[in-house]
Amino acid sequence: MRIEELDTPVAVVDLDRLSANIERLQAYLDKHGIDNRPHIKTHRIPAIAHMQMQAGAVGITCQTLSEAEVMCSAGISDIFLPYNLLSQTKLRRLMLLSRRARISVTADSAHTVEGYARAAAQEGTTLPVLIEMDGGYERCGVTTTAEVRALARQIDSAANLHFGGLMVYPCNPEANAFMTDSKMLLAQDGLAAERVSGGSSFVMWQAHEFTEFTEYRAGMYVYGDRNLVDAGAMTLDQCSYFVLATVVSRPTDDRVVLDSGSKSLAADSARKSSGHGLIIEYPEAELFKLSEEHAHVDVSRCTRKPEIGERVTVLANHCCVSNNLFSRLVGHRNGEVELEWPILAKGW
Amino acid sequence: MRIEELDTPVAVVDLDRLSANIERLQAYLDKHGIDNRPHIKTHRIPAIAHMQMQAGAVGITCQTLSEAEVMCSAGISDIFLPYNLLSQTKLRRLMLLSRRARISVTADSAHTVEGYARAAAQEGTTLPVLIEMDGGYERCGVTTTAEVRALARQIDSAANLHFGGLMVYPCNPEANAFMTDSKMLLAQDGLAAERVSGGSSFVMWQAHEFTEFTEYRAGMYVYGDRNLVDAGAMTLDQCSYFVLATVVSRPTDDRVVLDSGSKSLAADSARKSSGHGLIIEYPEAELFKLSEEHAHVDVSRCTRKPEIGERVTVLANHCCVSNNLFSRLVGHRNGEVELEWPILAKGW
Repeated sequence: MRIEELDTPVAVVDLDRLSANIERLQAYLDKHGIDNRPHIKTHRIPAIAHMQMQAGAVGITCQTLSEAEVMCSAGISDIFLPYNLLSQTKLRRLMLLSRRARISVTADSAHTVEGYARAAAQEGTTLPVLIEMDGGYERCGVTTTAEVRALARQIDSAANLHFGGLMVYPCNPEANAFMTDSKMLLAQDGLAAERVSGGSSFVMWQAHEFTEFTEYRAGMYVYGDRNLVDAGAMTLDQCSYFVLATVVSRPTDDRVVLDSGSKSLAADSARKSSGHGLIIEYPEAELFKLSEEHAHVDVSRCTRKPEIGERVTVLANHCCVSNNLFSRLVGHRNGEVELEWPILAKGW
Repeated sequence: MRIEELDTPVAVVDLDRLSANIERLQAYLDKHGIDNRPHIKTHRIPAIAHMQMQAGAVGITCQTLSEAEVMCSAGISDIFLPYNLLSQTKLRRLMLLSRRARISVTADSAHTVEGYARAAAQEGTTLPVLIEMDGGYERCGVTTTAEVRALARQIDSAANLHFGGLMVYPCNPEANAFMTDSKMLLAQDGLAAERVSGGSSFVMWQAHEFTEFTEYRAGMYVYGDRNLVDAGAMTLDQCSYFVLATVVSRPTDDRVVLDSGSKSLAADSARKSSGHGLIIEYPEAELFKLSEEHAHVDVSRCTRKPEIGERVTVLANHCCVSNNLFSRLVGHRNGEVELEWPILAKGW
């Protein structure tokens, strides 16, 4: 069966490109002696996680407990959860997971550390906790070395916690000094940051320039998307994940409508380009608006205009959120369908 | 069990408000003699569709075949699909559906009509086809009365199609004249538009001002969201759908992070307000950025700042796309959990 025979909208992955992307990052990180701990929030598919492990990853990263539970049940035995887990229910689930896999977590507050300490004591286990630091993008993470020191002391003094190191996401060059300074301060307390974990596919080829990183968490590199191409982190012909769509309407000569809307491409803006995705066959076209089941496309700059019924290949702005909208992913080689993967690791 | 005990992020619906919203629009449309054909793309839950039918709806509207298949299997017997359905697979599924429910569809091109004509002839059934007209928003739909006439003639002349009327979405006041002019032109051919179907919750209370409408398709009115409140179509205390979230980080005094990101609230922009949703307990707070599992919130204007671990109630910008990201919806009355609905009608 050819991918041209699949009904649209449908998410497809080029299996050769997928493998090449997995190998390419692994080789780069190996070369620089950085552990690879890929983030599976992009694909959510156990089979792809196993491909990453077989290529040499030391473990995986999951953003939610539900993702981790699915991956653990699929046989992945080393899982990092870089997320402040707070509720009693979540802490209980975390402890159940820790019976079946090597689990590590992060915290950026005393509140979070206290919860981990109580849960681990009750379970009678030792939980490695990394400290999340602000990488310069005003997301989660502590913002001063004093806070790093205080949290590290709190973790180290908890009977059932183990100080596991430092973590940032994403990370600008200035954050390297923050990590270096923090490590020096921690050394005064006799504490070593055995893991310093960085992330983001946008700057993955610069990971070695962050001299403190001992491990790296990239997610999108397996698929690629318009934002990564715009950022120069991947080329268009390295991208493996696309949404196949059909032209369902052509209200005017200069405007066509695809059946891939915000419920398949997601409404996330592009970081540099305008529009909601790139049509491979019509690079001059602009997806100027998404409604839920329609992409509205300006084709005025296209020499040949797409016809009603014609199929096109769309590169999403952000692959993680598009992939999240599908329940299945079709794998192919050169357009020949080889498999269909259920996208299993969903929810919280 | 109280909704305060549910783990976050979680989507909840106030069942009293939901019922009131369903009754309110039904009463308004009844008063004006307009058939109610609610769009289920918002909720995707058969039980809510049955509530709408019991309140007096003549049928429902689905945006995808998969939604229609689920609703049909759940006992809804009159379904309108205002979408150009093109592929052989989709046309075959449409014909199978037409054996089990009263189905009507739309077309805005000769290509689409030809497909319906072939499929209906092969099935030996008669398929009602409405013509989609541009309501003034440059989405799908023909843009001239001449095109309406040509499509109506094509539909009428196909042995197994029935000209079912006109359809617009959304619709500005000028489009009323387009519908009137089209009807007059069709009358010259002896064709009557038995249904003139309008839609959108944004202008639902103005439906009677569109003198041509015989039926109305609103979806979001059951839930409400920030866009509808901003537009004045619903009040905040009529909104029934919320995402419950937890403060998982407070990196600085003026910035907190919630566990509801673009994978639960969706990244759709607000039409008027800034930010990615409204926190009911902290209306001065601004959700200035969403990452996948985090909402980044500026709380500098809040007198009291939310604490780590505190739970908040978020009104999404666009309820349809948020609801689509969940697999379950928890129904409650005054915070007391009464049921949990699986969100079944997904996909294409």
